[in-house]
This record gives sequence, C-alpha cells and structure tokens, in this order.
Amino acid sequence: MRSNKDRRESALLENGWVRIIPLGGLGEIGLNMFVVETADDMVVIDAGLMFPDEEMLGIDLVIPDFSYLLEHRAKLRGLILTHGHEDHTGSLPFLLKELPIPVYGTPLSLGLAAEKIREQNLEADLRQVVPRESFHLGSLQVECMRVCHSIPDGVGVALETPAGLVVHAGDFKFDPTPVDGQLTDYHKFAELGDRGVLVLLSDSTNALRPGFTPSERTVGQALEEIFRTARRRIIVACFASHIHRIQQVLEVAARMGRKVAVHGKSMTTTTRIAADTGYLKVPPGVLVRLDELSSLSPGETVIIATGSQGEPLSAIARMAAGEHKQIEITPGDTVIFSARVIPGNEKSIARTINQLLRRGAEVVTEELAPVHVSGHPCQEELKLMLNLTRPKFFVPIHGEYRHRHHHAKLAAAVGIAPDHICLAENGDILEFTPDKGGVVGTVGGGRVFVDGKGVGDVGDAVLRERQHLARDGMVVVVIGLHPQTRAVVTGPEIISRGFIHLQDQEVLFDAAKRLVNEVLMGCPEEERMETAVLKENVKATLRKYIQKTFDRRPMILPVIIEMEGVTHDKAEFMVPSE
Amino acid sequence: MRSNKDRRESALLENGWVRIIPLGGLGEIGLNMFVVETADDMVVIDAGLMFPDEEMLGIDLVIPDFSYLLEHRAKLRGLILTHGHEDHTGSLPFLLKELPIPVYGTPLSLGLAAEKIREQNLEADLRQVVPRESFHLGSLQVECMRVCHSIPDGVGVALETPAGLVVHAGDFKFDPTPVDGQLTDYHKFAELGDRGVLVLLSDSTNALRPGFTPSERTVGQALEEIFRTARRRIIVACFASHIHRIQQVLEVAARMGRKVAVHGKSMTTTTRIAADTGYLKVPPGVLVRLDELSSLSPGETVIIATGSQGEPLSAIARMAAGEHKQIEITPGDTVIFSARVIPGNEKSIARTINQLLRRGAEVVTEELAPVHVSGHPCQEELKLMLNLTRPKFFVPIHGEYRHRHHHAKLAAAVGIAPDHICLAENGDILEFTPDKGGVVGTVGGGRVFVDGKGVGDVGDAVLRERQHLARDGMVVVVIGLHPQTRAVVTGPEIISRGFIHLQDQEVLFDAAKRLVNEVLMGCPEEERMETAVLKENVKATLRKYIQKTFDRRPMILPVIIEMEGVTHDKAEFMVPSE
Repeated sequence: MRSNKDRRESALLENGWVRIIPLGGLGEIGLNMFVVETADDMVVIDAGLMFPDEEMLGIDLVIPDFSYLLEHRAKLRGLILTHGHEDHTGSLPFLLKELPIPVYGTPLSLGLAAEKIREQNLEADLRQVVPRESFHLGSLQVECMRVCHSIPDGVGVALETPAGLVVHAGDFKFDPTPVDGQLTDYHKFAELGDRGVLVLLSDSTNALRPGFTPSERTVGQALEEIFRTARRRIIVACFASHIHRIQQVLEVAARMGRKVAVHGKSMTTTTRIAADTGYLKVPPGVLVRLDELSSLSPGETVIIATGSQGEPLSAIARMAAGEHKQIEITPGDTVIFSARVIPGNEKSIARTINQLLRRGAEVVTEELAPVHVSGHPCQEELKLMLNLTRPKFFVPIHGEYRHRHHHAKLAAAVGIAPDHICLAENGDILEFTPDKGGVVGTVGGGRVFVDGKGVGDVGDAVLRERQHLARDGMVVVVIGLHPQTRAVVTGPEIISRGFIHLQDQEVLFDAAKRLVNEVLMGCPEEERMETAVLKENVKATLRKYIQKTFDRRPMILPVIIEMEGVTHDKAEFMVPSE
Repeated sequence: MRSNKDRRESALLENGWVRIIPLGGLGEIGLNMFVVETADDMVVIDAGLMFPDEEMLGIDLVIPDFSYLLEHRAKLRGLILTHGHEDHTGSLPFLLKELPIPVYGTPLSLGLAAEKIREQNLEADLRQVVPRESFHLGSLQVECMRVCHSIPDGVGVALETPAGLVVHAGDFKFDPTPVDGQLTDYHKFAELGDRGVLVLLSDSTNALRPGFTPSERTVGQALEEIFRTARRRIIVACFASHIHRIQQVLEVAARMGRKVAVHGKSMTTTTRIAADTGYLKVPPGVLVRLDELSSLSPGETVIIATGSQGEPLSAIARMAAGEHKQIEITPGDTVIFSARVIPGNEKSIARTINQLLRRGAEVVTEELAPVHVSGHPCQEELKLMLNLTRPKFFVPIHGEYRHRHHHAKLAAAVGIAPDHICLAENGDILEFTPDKGGVVGTVGGGRVFVDGKGVGDVGDAVLRERQHLARDGMVVVVIGLHPQTRAVVTGPEIISRGFIHLQDQEVLFDAAKRLVNEVLMGCPEEERMETAVLKENVKATLRKYIQKTFDRRPMILPVIIEMEGVTHDKAEFMVPSE
C-alpha cells in the first residue's frame, strides 16, 4: 500500500479510524468490491465481475485486483454479499480460490453464490445472515437491513467501527409496493440516522434521472394489458435473476389461463433456486416443461427466456435468427423485452428486434409500453436515503464519474457539507475519523483480465497486439539464410491472414517479395549477421510498401531460418533462390 | 439482374411502368442510394456511405454495390442529391470514378459534394437545381422541393414517369419555425397530392417516436439559458454540417457579448462553404480565430468544435483527455453536447463526459436540457406527409426494419391500402404500374467494404480472419523438414502474437513443442510426404492442447520449410533436433 500521507500515527488512538477502500465499484458499472478496514479487522463487501467492452478483444471477464486482500489476509474476517447479482458476486470463486474466507449473505444470495462456487469445484464457508440481526466479524458489529432491488433478498450493510457507523446501502430502490411485500427498511435506515452515521455509501446508477423509479408492480399491470390483447404465443425476455419479474409473468399468465415454460440454463437454474428457497411462489399448475407447450394452442402459452440483450447465443437471438431447435417464431407471436438496454448492447438488441419483426412477431419494448422499471433509485429516492441516514461523510458509489458527480450535487443540496463528500477512484484509501475524512493514499491495483483459463496473463501488451491484428491482420515473412554466408537461400515467402483476399494476394506479394529481396541483397554483411537488425529492416521495408500500396498497417512478423540449401524444386513453400 | 418473374412483356406498354431499386437505404442507417428506372431512362437519388460497426474490423467505410448502375450505364442520366449529409453523398467519389455522370443538387449540397470530389482529385459535372423549377433527365421530368432537415438546402424529389408521379421526400421534418425561414414546402407536397402521387418514399428514422419533432428554434432558447448562467468559457460540440445549429450559437453568443471560434478541419471547411454560399449568416464581429480567444476573458468566449460522439481523435475528446495542444479544459468551463447519440457511440460519449467532469467542467447533454432536436419527422409529421401526398403506393425508407415496419402501420392507419405498402430490402426491384406495385425480383449486390486504398478486396472471409485474430491472437509454428526423408531437421519453433504474455510463453511453449514433435515423429511416412496433411495434423494437435490448457482458440499458422540441415548451434530460431 503506497500511502501519500502516513496518517497511522495521527489516527487518534482515542477516537479510532476506519478505512474504506473501493477495489471496484467506482467507474464503469460492475466489479463492485469494497474493503472496510480498522486497526484490528478487515471485511470485504461484495466480489463483483465485469464483462469486457469491445476494446478488450478476446477477454472473457474482468475481475478486481485482490492483492490488497492477500497482503492483509491475517486480519480479513469475511466477505458480505449485498445481493446475488453478477456484478456483486461474479468474482467470488476467483477470490475464494486464493482466500478461503467465510461468506455472509441472505439465503438467495448465498444460494446463487453456492451455484457459482460449485461450478468451479470449490468449497466455501457460507453463513446465512438475518436482516436486523446483528453479528460479529472480528470485533466489528455488523447488521444487514432489507432493500428492494431487481433481485430479491438484497440488503444494505451497517458496520459499527471504532470511528463510527459505516453504512453501505446496497443496490436499492424505495419501492412503495414491492411484489413480495418486503419493503426497503425505512425504519432501520431512520434508526441508523438517529444513532449517527459516520459514512454512507450509496448507489449512483440513476443519479441523473429525476423523480422516483416506478414500482415493480407497474410492470405487472403493463404485462396484463399486453397478455389481454396478444393473439398467439407470448415470449418474455428478461434477466434470469429478476425473480419478481418472473413472478409477475407467472401470476398474469395464471390469471389469463396461460401456461408458462421457463427456458434456458441460467433461467431454469435461477428459478429453481428461487422456488426452492421460497422466493418464487409458483401459482399451482402454471409452470410446464417446454416440450409440453406444443400440446397447447399458442394463445395458451408463455415462454420466459434469456436474450434480452440480443446476446448471439441466447434463446431469443436464436429464435430471431431461425436457429432455435425447439421454438420457431410464427406470425402473431408477441415478444416482450422486459429488461433495460445495457449500454453497449443497443445494436445487438436492435438487430434481434428487426429479425423478430421480419418473422412476423409483434415486439414490445420499454419504448412502447412500461414493460420494465429500474431496480435502482432515482434522484428523489437518493435524497430520501441521505435524509434518513443523515451521514457526516458521503461517498457516492456504483456509477460512472458523471453519475457520482451528480449524486454529490444532490448530497450538497440536502445539506451534506461539500468537503465531506468524497468523489474517489478505485484503489483510493478513504480514511475517516469522527471528525475528518478523505483520501489519504492509494493501494494501486486495478482490473485483472480473465481469458479462458488464464487469470491475469493477458495484459495490455497482448490486448494491443490483438487490436493491431484485428485492424489490419497479419503478414508473416519467412526467409531462409545460409548460416555462414547469410545469403538468401530461400524466400522471402509471404503468408497473410486477415489482410487481403486470397485471390488478390499473388500479384501483390510478388512485388513485395522482390522488394524484400532487394533489401536482403543490398544489406551490408555485418547487418545480415545480426538477425535482429535484419528482421527490423525487412519489417520496415514491407511496412512502407504495404502502407503505400494499400494504406493499411498489418502486423508484420519476419521469421528467419538458417539453412544450408534446397535440393529440389517441389518445395511447398519455396521460391528457389534466383 | 436476376428477375424472378419477368414482367417486361406484361409491362403494359400502354400504361408504362417504373422501377425503384434501393441499392442502400433500407436497413442500417446510412448507405442511401435509390435507383429510379423506366424503359428509357435511369436516375440515381443519393450516393451514401456508412461507417463500419464494431464487427467490421479494420474496415474504414462501407459503400453500396454499384454493379447495377454499371450494367445499365447507357441509360443512366444523372444523380440527384437530396442534401449534403455523408450518408447521402459519401460514396459519390467512388461512384463518379467509375461512372462520370452529371450530379444535380442545391448549392450547398453541391458545394459539400465538390469538396469531397476535389479531395479525391476527380472532376465532376455539377448542375445546380432550383426548388420548384422542373428540369429533364432524359425523358423524365424532375422537380425538387424544399424540406427542412438538420442541414440547410435539403430537398425532396418528384419524378414524372410513364407510370405516374414518384415522390422521394428526402430527409425531412415539418419545422413550423425554421431558423432560415425556409419551410418544408407544404404547398408543393399538397399540389403533388392533388395531381396524384403513384409512389411515395418517406423517411422512417423516427417512426417509433410519437408526436412532432420540436422546432430547431427551441435549441436556441435552451442555449440562451445556458449561456446566461455559464461563468466561464463555453464549448459547443455539434456536427459540422448542422449550419442552423451553428447559426444559433453565433446569434446567442452575439447577444451575450461573446466571441466565437470555430475549431476543427471539418468544422472550419463546412462553415466556410456555408458562409460563402450565404447559408450561414455570421453576425458581424462575432467570429474570431482560435488564437484570438486567449486575449479575451473566458466569460467572453465560445468554441464550436467537433467530437459530439466522443470520437477518439476529435477536438472534444482530446480536450477531455488533456491532449489538446491549444485548448485546456479549466474548472468552470461549460461543455454542451448539442447533438444526438448515434447508436453505438454511447460508451465513447460517456467516457468523454466523465473525463470532462473530472477536469471540473460543467457538461450539458440532451438528458439535462433541450440542447438538441432531431432533423427527422416523428409520427404526426409522417402522417402529415402521407395525407398531403396521398400516394397510391408507399415505400417506407431510411430506417431499420423496425422503423419501416412501424411507418407501414402509420400508413395503414391513415388509409393506404395494406397491400400497397412495400416493406422491401436493399437490392429488391420494386415495380409499379398505375394499378399494380410490388417486389418483382432482386438485383443482388449489397455492401462493399473500403479498407485503406482497397475497394472491395476485403470481404467476409478476411473479416472473419480478423475477428479470429482479434479474439485470441495467432500462433505461428515453424518446422524444418528434410526434403527427401522428411525428418524433422529443425523446430517446431512456436511464435505467438496477441495470444499470451511474453513472460509466460516459454514454459508453456516447451510443452507444446514436445507435443508437436511427437506428432511429427509418429507421423506415418506417406502423411509426412503430404505437406498439407502434415500441416493439418500439427494444427489440430496444437489447437487441442491450447484449448485444453488455456481455453483459448488462437489462429494457428503452420509453416513448413524444406531444408537439408543445420550446421551450427548459434541459430536464431533453431532448436537443434534431438
């Protein structure tokens, strides 16, 4: 940990201190992980994962850098999950592999986490928390409280530290009429505010949106309208984790006399876990298997599937492309996109919608009817959370800079002192005492790329190579040189991939070969001795030629082989030296 | 031209026919090009260009396939430009290179086209049209009429054909209070409707949006509000072609006593052309050079720049990244994104906004204030166009399928017979007589990729190679075999790019090399004779190993060299055979 100002000494042993270190959660959405550290203990909140953006070529996943946790494993007491979403639990298996610490969470969150852990053939010490029942992690007293979100069983976390109360509000919304009747715990947040909250960390996702997020129940009403007028089969695309959304689909279907099949691995897994743990209450007789639907008339069926983001291999995308083995879209089918558009997915969703329309389906999106509401709080709810908890210090989290920046403005508007509002970055060490708070240093670290089975072995250098390859392809030049004389024995032979069409290659490569030959012939002997120098010359010559002729910059890879000679003409890759 | 039903004979010589062939313009936005063909003549409307989406790796531009025009050059009379936007003029140089036909357009459209043509060192026969003044192209009588859009001097096109009136409405909106006082020609469209319109082609971009598009003037009002409260410098990001937007910025600045500098090559070029042709009326004394701004106080300055899409090399992006040589963002500066978010650019725009906020700038977007309005018509305007022109047949254009699909619904709602509404695809031949209309065949063709200097030489195969390279990189295996015995003389040597970090390569490649050696040793002689078979075996072995060990699939390129032997050990790439 590189600390700019070492404040340990001035930690005011009589008052205590607490450090909050975001290892992820400030910046691009995803990758949430907050460390809460005191003199004797350390606790982690959430272990998120992020999906790569389009520049991270070939990368499968992005996880936070756990180095700081590894360095302080002796005082690390456990990990608390606020809820079961991927961006809060996805890196758990990677973390537990290196740090087998106890994991605390509500039943559904643990159930979903257990599934991930089992998939990686790991074991874990999972400990259930009950909202409003406090427990200890080391010497820290911890209490969780219910919050509404787009997945059930979400909680906020309150930690009593030597410096004061730290409250992490979780991902929340103030839904006044939640589908499962479990309100966000207004009273507990108010009580914490009365006790005195030192630091509040709150969800900035919708900080740019005025007003209140509508209740989840409004979606049920919109679905009912659509179900009433739909002539044939209804297909609902939503996130597998959105149990309350699925709940409402089941209820509306039951009311309308339709049967529902849940389709797709993540969908069936998650609904199974939710039903087993009592979070999904399935109306009797409404759920059937996919193959059972064919015996019903289309007007009596509903399918719930994944693919709301137009992901190429998802059920919905395959249906749209006509490639789904069991489900064929027929004119008159209604497809409802009951989810938000995750930024970056606009084109794949549009493509899927266009394909569905071409197949004669009706398509309903958030644009046309209120078939989705957010799980995050808008401006009025953010102000409510601030006014209930009345924190001394405030750290907006879970959002890009522009969201957190605006959340900071809201906090100032409700009376938080501007110099008590911390706009930090991942890796910053935020230190708080009863009187002071702010960034005191940084732990460094950052993001770790996971590609296939490799964790952290693909770094920026490899990514840059992939980006170069992606842009203009690659050209391999193979040259055989005599080991002593370094005369050109064979080649240069030029092979390319992703550069130019095979048919056009020949003529153009002949020209390139002549050029490289000239370079090699005209190369002073001492340079020909130095293979590295030779390669650079060949590279430079080819690069210039290709840039001039094609205005492209493929990656150029010269390969030099030392060889005595070639004895016959029927060589596969040979151009006999002239 | 592959015609499914040959209707030439039944062309009803007494009634006449007209064919409309979209070579682009139906589908992804961009690439607009419509062919209007009669027995004796052919005319092209627009010559658009599209920017590649993220799967078209390394591609610079996408243009339509002109093959049909080349096949019928004898009857091709000319090209008409509806307006000066890139997606209607961008492929003009490529077209004119092969087909030097006359180009008709309004002054600003021709002025912008001339700039493009000059940049490619071409010449062109540019002919100015005057709205409401008809002219002939071959035996076709053509008349253009003014339409409002997000660029001045836009027109729709009416062509009198043997079958009847064909009306292409251009890109339009019904702005009731246009900045330049030039209304969309309600009266001409009404007159055409009275004469009797056979086919209408109309702009579907905003067909999913209810209501009316607000007037361009409302942006001026919003800008005034922001200018009034802005403390320091104001930077406005907008499209260089949005002359009326720039006009309003200049006027508001003049009223507020601020000077304006226009910055960026396309911005300065376009404003120059617009000012010279009288389309931009610069208030006296308000426009200054960028370097003159430094002598003014920040509260007296405005900069208009490109970069509203967060394009990496644009002025705004460089300012946000702190890499702009002349302009440094200082706290209190206000940056206004006075443009829409083109789908696909959400992340680059967000990144730029976050960077600007970090530098202490205030950022205003369409989300926070009405600083942008569309140039395309919403639902009520689309219905107005339909009701004024009262066409017999209707072809929704300029939109993805979902937009055109909904535009078709609007047309049915106002009374166009559903079987007279054509939802076509690019390349379809739409044939109309006074009584019948519909798709009669297809000309094939599609999109042509432009990469660097190559037009059409990068096809799907090369793109797939680039996508493979992008995902997991490339591994080159070099093996030297004795020409007669085909024993392994040297190698396998393994080199990779974009696959794995250099440091991690050695250990892992040793394992891979052993594996490939085993394959080669164990290879029956007849297979070793067949180099192609050998390469396949090596490829398959390596692929399996890499997949199993790394869970990745780099492109594998085996290179086999025939060679006698290696005489010394100090070879650069050699592993002496064991």
